[in-house]
Amino acid sequence: MDSVFHGGASYKTPFVTFCSWKSDEHMNKCKNICEDTPEGRKQLTRYKDGCVRLRNPHIELMDQDILYHLALGSGSHDLQAMFGDVKYVCMGGTPKRMEQFAYFIMNEIGFKLPAGTTLLDISQYSYRYSMYKVGPVLSISHGMGIPSVGILLHEIIKLMYHARVKDPIFFRLGTCGGIGIEGGNIVITEEAVDGMGRPFLELPILGKIVHRPAKLDRDLAMELKDLATADDPWETHVGKTMCTHDFYEGQGRLDGAFCEYTERDKLNFLEKIHKDHIINMEMESLAFGALTYHAGIRSAVICVTLLNRLNGDQVSSTKEVLNEWQNRPQMLVARYIKKHLEDDKIAVELSPPSPATVKSPKKMRIVREESQSYE
Amino acid sequence: MDSVFHGGASYKTPFVTFCSWKSDEHMNKCKNICEDTPEGRKQLTRYKDGCVRLRNPHIELMDQDILYHLALGSGSHDLQAMFGDVKYVCMGGTPKRMEQFAYFIMNEIGFKLPAGTTLLDISQYSYRYSMYKVGPVLSISHGMGIPSVGILLHEIIKLMYHARVKDPIFFRLGTCGGIGIEGGNIVITEEAVDGMGRPFLELPILGKIVHRPAKLDRDLAMELKDLATADDPWETHVGKTMCTHDFYEGQGRLDGAFCEYTERDKLNFLEKIHKDHIINMEMESLAFGALTYHAGIRSAVICVTLLNRLNGDQVSSTKEVLNEWQNRPQMLVARYIKKHLEDDKIAVELSPPSPATVKSPKKMRIVREESQSYE
Repeated sequence: MDSVFHGGASYKTPFVTFCSWKSDEHMNKCKNICEDTPEGRKQLTRYKDGCVRLRNPHIELMDQDILYHLALGSGSHDLQAMFGDVKYVCMGGTPKRMEQFAYFIMNEIGFKLPAGTTLLDISQYSYRYSMYKVGPVLSISHGMGIPSVGILLHEIIKLMYHARVKDPIFFRLGTCGGIGIEGGNIVITEEAVDGMGRPFLELPILGKIVHRPAKLDRDLAMELKDLATADDPWETHVGKTMCTHDFYEGQGRLDGAFCEYTERDKLNFLEKIHKDHIINMEMESLAFGALTYHAGIRSAVICVTLLNRLNGDQVSSTKEVLNEWQNRPQMLVARYIKKHLEDDKIAVELSPPSPATVKSPKKMRIVREESQSYE
Repeated sequence: MDSVFHGGASYKTPFVTFCSWKSDEHMNKCKNICEDTPEGRKQLTRYKDGCVRLRNPHIELMDQDILYHLALGSGSHDLQAMFGDVKYVCMGGTPKRMEQFAYFIMNEIGFKLPAGTTLLDISQYSYRYSMYKVGPVLSISHGMGIPSVGILLHEIIKLMYHARVKDPIFFRLGTCGGIGIEGGNIVITEEAVDGMGRPFLELPILGKIVHRPAKLDRDLAMELKDLATADDPWETHVGKTMCTHDFYEGQGRLDGAFCEYTERDKLNFLEKIHKDHIINMEMESLAFGALTYHAGIRSAVICVTLLNRLNGDQVSSTKEVLNEWQNRPQMLVARYIKKHLEDDKIAVELSPPSPATVKSPKKMRIVREESQSYE
């Protein structure tokens, strides 16, 4: 067996066949491409027709790829029929907010549902993320923190590949603490940094530390900022975002289970990062920037500030005010999507009827079962 | 104002008053206690009556403490009436599984609900975590990854303090990949290590790296192991757990959106960590060990293996088999809880009727609103 495969190993599980020799060859080829040039990055992340290409030679060689945490699979579902028309992927924290965004964007872009139908949570059988599709827009909840948004990004980037999507744009719509910015204003992330102020995601892979630059798309950020108007009841800032692994001590709060510093220590820290041009803090932008940049996908992080952390830790606005604030990133992203759908004359249409999207009911059941058992 | 407070600063938000001078004094006192001795750790984490004490002097000084991500508050709810009888806190990944565990443990410990009632998701208004209470047992979902379980642990440890709980025990019941252990077996974590094999949680706090040892309780682990019997259709192992920030590249999988190593590289890594006595991999144990140890709370991580990663990446068992496997950690923990409730002659009773538990309907509404707006 080995000799046939030129010294590489091969093994078969019920769903996957890996032929290392082929993927090794591909991998060596990729290693000779310089990813520091736009051209090199394009070669690594796009096919010639513009569809998303994965920086993983193994996926092409698999019989079926299960997206465990979404309860979808390439053998069970016709992912191209279901998701081939996606242009914009919008992510945010909770299932409830992203369901609300789905209905909001439906109205904004004039997407119509047939009588007697409603939106479905496509990933309801995963019991983790919620996903809604409104024509060219996906609205997905990502949970809290880098690992949760990271798993989702891996699977959504693979979904873009399986669906043969061309040049998708990813948005994260969130809430954050402002640093020197009062509550209710929008911050578009120019660059994400970690809790030590370093502009990359640090990730141990096979026992070695890998650094992935957490770059958001500058042109996209500026275009979003330009869509804000003088009439908006908020300010729109573009600046650096600090992304932490922890909400309490990691963000210098005084109200966690542990706090071994004084209020003065906290304020010194917040004032220091403020001087370093960090204007907000949240918990996902580092992975969002690093993984989309590595995949050659243009992306933006747009958050509304709930308070100015230089003045305190606790949010004290009323429900009505907070709800209105949370709509602001949604409004800005909706303006962008509407403009580009109109400019590019993209028709907002229903995807093909559902029966065509399930390729194998038996495999679909297996995918759901596997999805439920993973954590 | 400053002179009154002996040079410390004081500020007031609608819910919080911090008086730094008092907390600084307390903090300096704590800094002189040696936490390397059992006696010192007890002093830092327990009141004289055995109730949980927070390593945060600020909380005692707050008018109200809002547990944002649980939609509970110390000013809105009578947390002692609601949670004062809690002995065991059980956490796991998804809301669905922890709801199922709540009904399972209800049956196991003989907890009875009045006719016409059912369990309620106490944190339903947070739209993040789900929490069920079954007499002395809390069953809570923690989401995916260290930040998600970390936020929950901060708030649950604070809940133990507000409820004046004495010596609670925390369990994480999860799934994992086995390293050299076939699917369907139980691994109790002896020590959690990160993706580089280091036995601590690394956390930037105010711009400085802090290392927190990720120690699980060895006696508790051994007692759980002793509750496994020769008749169990699984093996129960005690060993080291690798806890990663990422499911795909972080765990050496070949089926993520990115993979820049070969199958041989992956197997070399898994074989190396296997030689270092790491017997399973998951994504929460490091924070679970580090935060409970820092709080002086005894804890254990009990996971069932879904596959042996030395043989592949994909789970291929049937739904029935996987479901049965996932009950195994629950069964072991149920044996522990039953034994101790019987040994300690603890009556399994309903908490006081609900109207007594809401101290201020107005404050409760505010807590719900604030909870919904946080991410």
